[in-house]
This record gives sequence, C-alpha cells and structure tokens, in this order.
Amino acid sequence: MSPIEKYNKRTDAITSLVCVGLDPEFAKLPDRFKSAEFPQFEFNKYIIDTTHEHAAAYKLNMAFYEARGDVGYRELKLTMNYLHQHHPDIFTICDAKRGDIGNTNAQSVAAIFDLFGFDAATVQCYLGKEAILPFLNRIDKVTMVLVRTSNPGAGEIQDLLVKDKPLWQVVAEKCEHEWNEHGNVMQVIGATYPKEMEIIRTISKNMTFLVPGVNAQGGEVEATVKAGLNSAKKGMIINSSRGIIFAEDPSTEAKKLKEEINKYR
Amino acid sequence: MSPIEKYNKRTDAITSLVCVGLDPEFAKLPDRFKSAEFPQFEFNKYIIDTTHEHAAAYKLNMAFYEARGDVGYRELKLTMNYLHQHHPDIFTICDAKRGDIGNTNAQSVAAIFDLFGFDAATVQCYLGKEAILPFLNRIDKVTMVLVRTSNPGAGEIQDLLVKDKPLWQVVAEKCEHEWNEHGNVMQVIGATYPKEMEIIRTISKNMTFLVPGVNAQGGEVEATVKAGLNSAKKGMIINSSRGIIFAEDPSTEAKKLKEEINKYR
Repeated sequence: MSPIEKYNKRTDAITSLVCVGLDPEFAKLPDRFKSAEFPQFEFNKYIIDTTHEHAAAYKLNMAFYEARGDVGYRELKLTMNYLHQHHPDIFTICDAKRGDIGNTNAQSVAAIFDLFGFDAATVQCYLGKEAILPFLNRIDKVTMVLVRTSNPGAGEIQDLLVKDKPLWQVVAEKCEHEWNEHGNVMQVIGATYPKEMEIIRTISKNMTFLVPGVNAQGGEVEATVKAGLNSAKKGMIINSSRGIIFAEDPSTEAKKLKEEINKYR
Repeated sequence: MSPIEKYNKRTDAITSLVCVGLDPEFAKLPDRFKSAEFPQFEFNKYIIDTTHEHAAAYKLNMAFYEARGDVGYRELKLTMNYLHQHHPDIFTICDAKRGDIGNTNAQSVAAIFDLFGFDAATVQCYLGKEAILPFLNRIDKVTMVLVRTSNPGAGEIQDLLVKDKPLWQVVAEKCEHEWNEHGNVMQVIGATYPKEMEIIRTISKNMTFLVPGVNAQGGEVEATVKAGLNSAKKGMIINSSRGIIFAEDPSTEAKKLKEEINKYR
C-alpha cells in the first residue's frame, strides 16, 4: 500500500479529513501533565486517546519537541511508538520543514522516516529538487513541499513575480510536473489563502494538500474546503493544532471540525 | 559585546576565518569512537581539542545529531557545554536551516539560543521576514539567512528571475536593506558560487557571510576569498566539515585551510 493510499483508506474509514496537530508546547500544558515524568508524551497520549476516532492523521511539529532538547525528542519517539502500537492505520506527518543539501537531508530522512517512523515529512523548496531527492526517493513515504504557507507575511517572498507568475505558483507547478515522478509528493498550502489554493487545485487536479491554519490562525473552513477538494471529494489533510489540543474538550473540537468540513464536501 | 563583534574579535586573535563543521555522521566515525558511551561527543571533543587554535567558529549541523534522535541531541548539548566551558571565545553556529511560522520559530529560538546556547542560527527565507522575527528580534544573537546555497541544484529555485533579478539577489537585498534593522543578520552563500558572492558583496559591503562548500563540495579557496572579503579583509566565516573532521590529521587540515585563506586576504 502506497503511503497516500494509507491516508485515503483512513479518511474513507472514518469519513474525516481532519489532522490533529500534536504540538505540545510545554508552557501551555495543563498542570496535571507538567509534573509527569514524560509531560509531552502523557499529554499527547491523552489527546490521541480522545481524538483518534476523528483523526485521519496526526502531525507532529518537531520544534515543539526540539525546544526541550533530548528530553523532547524522547517524548516524540514515545508518542510515535504509541501511535504505531495502537493506531497503525492513522497517517503520521513530521512537520519538520527541512531544507538542506542532499548529503544532510539524507540524515533528516534517516531520523524522520526510519528512526521515528513517520509516513510523511514537510520540506522547503529553496534548495531545489536535487537537494530534496533523499526525501523524494523514499517511494514508501510522502514528501510534502511548502508551497503557500499560512503566515500573514507569506507573500513577501512567495508572491514575488517570476515572469508573470507568483513564486508559489511556480513551486506548485514543479510539484505537479517535475518533482512527483514517484507519485509521492503532496503540497502544503495554508488555509489562510483559499484563493491561491483554488488556483493550485487547477494545476494539481488530484494531488493531496496538507492544509494548516484553520481556526487558531484564522483560516475559514468553508472557503478552504471549497477551494481544495479534488474530484474525489478528498485530496486534503486539514490540520488544526492549538484549536483542538488546548480546547476544554479536544474530542468535541475534533468532531466539530470533522463535521464542519464534511458539510462542505 | 555584539555577537558579530565576538566573531570578529576571535578572528583577529587567531588570524583565521576558518569555521570547522562538527557534523559527526555516525557511520563515518572512526571505530575507536563508535564504541564510546557518547560517540559523537567524544569525536567532537577530539576535533575541538585538535583544531581550536585555528577555529574562529564551530558550526554544528543539527541533522547529524537528529539522525540519532534523543541520544544525538544529548551529544549535541554535551558538545555545546564543552565549548562553553573550554572555548567561550569561539563563535558557535547552529546550522538548522529552520523556517516555520512565527509561533513555531519561537520554539526553535528557545532550543537553539537558550537551551543549547548557540551564538547564531541559519534560517530559510521562504516564509518572509514576519516569520523570521523571533530570530531577528534576538539582538544578542545572529540570524544567518540562506541566500545562495552550495548544492549543484541551487539554481532551480534561486536563479528564477524576479523582474530582471535572480531570486537569490532579491533575498540578498532584503537581508541588507530590510531584515537587518538590529545589525544582527548574516548571509549564507556557498563557496561553489563565487560569481554570485561577488555580486552580493557589492550589495552588502560589510555584512558577514557564512560560506559552506569549500573542499569536499568543490568550492575553490582562492576564488571564494577574493569574491567574499569585505573592506576590512574579513566578513567571511569559511566552513569546512568533512574535509577537516574526517581527515587523517584534522589539526593540519584546519591549519592548511587557515593559511590558504590568509594567503588571499
């Protein structure tokens, strides 16, 4: 089973395009977790236990673990072990946004895919395809290229016009036509930019998009879903992190997002 | 003392622009280190002990530690502790190439500057200044922006023409005129692209460049130094990793590079 099939199978099984972002910022953890031996892991376990029936994917942003050094990386590994053991059918994304020369990217590949066992990793485009090859060549895994990021200042570089096209569009076209030889590429497109997403959907009719930025960052679900669905009414992994995991009741929040998305499918 | 002064002071004290890249790829470590309790740290200690008199800076690429998970990050921390204790005057660079939204970059800042105690960090430009602010706002630290990377395929994205200028030049101009309000920005420019470096030196007359890619990656010292020196005959941090650390005699290699660079200053 290809890694993209893994995602699609899961999404069909539970009728959900929701990805829950496991970004357990230590300062924001409820007090009952802070005093645990493995606070980030215990918190993640609680989130996984309460949200898994709505989660087509889990996305872990490395920075929230790296902030605690080796201790954080141990908790990241514990979390991945827990997912592999209890929910092997849920798609896992390492939000690492890595981007180095090939020789170095090969090390990140070893960490993300082999040591931690993620299904997918996010990467930067600035160094070009030749640098990303260690990711792309892993046909058993998904490479997710940052195309249009969710932050307010994304346009400073991404809107620069290359001939008559914005840079994000050039990158989207490369993802579709040049970088996807093995059929294992996805694109990262912020929910905060539905107009751009709509254009990218005309370039990539079927490719799956990882979509961060709904809720906490202001992306609206209706506009996002309408802009991003492919013809199979899928092709999206819609992530919410803070909006779900730090909610009073994460399960209800995940369910609510799932249902709101499904309303527009 | 500003972080850039720290580098300049060190470079003057030992008449060296050499940065030694501590990228202890586990598979390449000599057998006598592989069996140690902390193999990467013990290897780094050996490299530091034998090269410090020629090293104006040490650069640690996170990927080579991350590849071993929490264990690698512990060895990274041990290495930083060792440098802080024995060589507090040597400039330290975290080659992390981080690039995320501001909220997440703040976590990387906490890890790189506070937890590990680096003087400088490398970052991506694709998300724009607004996303990099958590780095830039740390006026006690240096933010190093990837402008022209050393890899053979760098041009695929970086040479795209924005109006009549290549993207790398647009980014270089932003570093000089828009992103350096606090005087704590440096640019990363590969030694494999001396012509581009020469142009960037006309844009940024005094800014310091981090220059990877000499030796192992094919960058020539003479062309690099002639292209990159500022009017004070400094303004460069010339990194060699594999070429020094895996040499038969790292001390001799570091000294050789130092002297070759000084020949063209």
